[in-house]
Amino acid sequence: MSLQQIYYNLKNDLKWIERELEKAIKTEHQVLNDSSAHLLKAGGKRMRPIFVLLSGRFGQYKREELKRVAVGLELIHMATLVHDDVIDDADTRRGKSTVKSEWDNKIAMYTGDFIFARALTELSHLKEPRVHPILAAAMRQVCLGEIDQIEDLYSERQSLYRYLHRIKRKTALLMSISCQLGAMVSEAKPKYIARLKAYGYYVGMAFQLTDDVLDFVGDEKTLGKPAGNDLRQGNITLPVIYALSQADERERAMILAYLRSQGEDGLLEEILQLVRQKGGIEYTLDLSKRYMEKAMRSLTELPTCYERESLRLISEFIVQRSY
Amino acid sequence: MSLQQIYYNLKNDLKWIERELEKAIKTEHQVLNDSSAHLLKAGGKRMRPIFVLLSGRFGQYKREELKRVAVGLELIHMATLVHDDVIDDADTRRGKSTVKSEWDNKIAMYTGDFIFARALTELSHLKEPRVHPILAAAMRQVCLGEIDQIEDLYSERQSLYRYLHRIKRKTALLMSISCQLGAMVSEAKPKYIARLKAYGYYVGMAFQLTDDVLDFVGDEKTLGKPAGNDLRQGNITLPVIYALSQADERERAMILAYLRSQGEDGLLEEILQLVRQKGGIEYTLDLSKRYMEKAMRSLTELPTCYERESLRLISEFIVQRSY
Repeated sequence: MSLQQIYYNLKNDLKWIERELEKAIKTEHQVLNDSSAHLLKAGGKRMRPIFVLLSGRFGQYKREELKRVAVGLELIHMATLVHDDVIDDADTRRGKSTVKSEWDNKIAMYTGDFIFARALTELSHLKEPRVHPILAAAMRQVCLGEIDQIEDLYSERQSLYRYLHRIKRKTALLMSISCQLGAMVSEAKPKYIARLKAYGYYVGMAFQLTDDVLDFVGDEKTLGKPAGNDLRQGNITLPVIYALSQADERERAMILAYLRSQGEDGLLEEILQLVRQKGGIEYTLDLSKRYMEKAMRSLTELPTCYERESLRLISEFIVQRSY
Repeated sequence: MSLQQIYYNLKNDLKWIERELEKAIKTEHQVLNDSSAHLLKAGGKRMRPIFVLLSGRFGQYKREELKRVAVGLELIHMATLVHDDVIDDADTRRGKSTVKSEWDNKIAMYTGDFIFARALTELSHLKEPRVHPILAAAMRQVCLGEIDQIEDLYSERQSLYRYLHRIKRKTALLMSISCQLGAMVSEAKPKYIARLKAYGYYVGMAFQLTDDVLDFVGDEKTLGKPAGNDLRQGNITLPVIYALSQADERERAMILAYLRSQGEDGLLEEILQLVRQKGGIEYTLDLSKRYMEKAMRSLTELPTCYERESLRLISEFIVQRSY
């Protein structure tokens, strides 16, 4: 089985989710309608819907309920992106202009609030009662994740633990509940739900680690944003944290001067070079691989089937694009 | 019993809630810390905490749980205000500068997101399981309320029904669940919980109606913002909706021209005058009084006690300040 074939088989379902996403963000308010449509059209891999739909196959595939989970979680993801772009002052994402650059911060704010409200509406209709406390807790974590990001911007108080906690909230959690809830609304066996939840979490961690490496090794064309962008915006990722731990006094001072001046003082290029020299890239990729191994082990406890193989191939593709 | 005496008796509890609010918004991030403290210090009547604490007296007063409800709901209220000020482009509220004017739209956005996240954290710890679906539904309504406000700005599509729906989401709902959840976490009898919930809803509707009238009859000194401010910002309230229904063709055209041009064309002063002439003020106050009567009737089904009398006097004070 090839990746192309999986996408081909998912194509109809994904088209349907795309139409449902379009429906969910329709409003008579012209600006909101345009800004939300702009965000939707900017695309994305729709990883959360894919995880929801594939996980649903481990129970009785409940089409309508799965649609609500897929649309609701993807909308929450989109809502966080549009606020993140305001915080990061980002003009492009995935090579497309952001809402805040195309319109302004005010409109980006309420576009995010709007999409979040629509997500809550979609999810509130889910019939399975077990999903609601899970969603409430996830919502809380997603909001706290945005605040972690703000609090840690240019902050010197960095650690592996704090970084992992941050990317868990930022990325892994939503992927994890995509799998968990997809299986849950389809009434999959509890042990399958637990395995899929773990799988989503590990893939999410692995994905974010790789994504943070890409920012150091990619170029504007492949990234859709300039290289070194995270550091430029004050987002301190694991490659930098590792480099800091390995740096001598002079090098450490150089990085800290950059952070303390909010990027005003110090040479970004030199720091990027230092991160590469100190092995920050290899260390981060190695950790990503270990999360991926855990993800794969979670899958082995699921029945052998087409969907299991699809989950394996898709996550490998998503995570390993930079190896 | 006098109003002063009620406030005097509540004083210690309110000081305690104020300290807890301060604790809840503490963060090491300097800007977030300052902007949130600025918002908190701008004050407010703390109506939600008062309703929570008084309603708690109809069961076994559970201090810690009530604190969480009071702090959580007041923080949600504050979070909506700071985003509302961005939407309304408001430079002052309650006579104090807004976060968006003191800092900017970006910081107001994430201050609101931060306070919302802290509210969710506070509320997530509540032990009584019945409160969580109620909170989830309220959260959704509060988010949708913000969107109503955006969608209806300068909109011609106004009606009494739509207006009432909007102020329900904007104001009455949080007041209603303040009473409901205060009683619920204190394990009050179900019929008391239901009466208090109704009371909070009716008071909230009455309060918002009066507040919307004040914008036409007050002056900058008493309002903490210039008179006619709502209409200037495109917020079409009941006095205007009523005036529209009573206006002749020429007058109607004048108001609609103002709305269609987003306040650029047309004379605000003339429209304010028209609203007063057409009886928009009296109509709105009359409706407010009817909601207050319903609120009072809800109270009569509660046991006669000091707290019941306090609720009566406080709501009369809050609502009738403009009569």
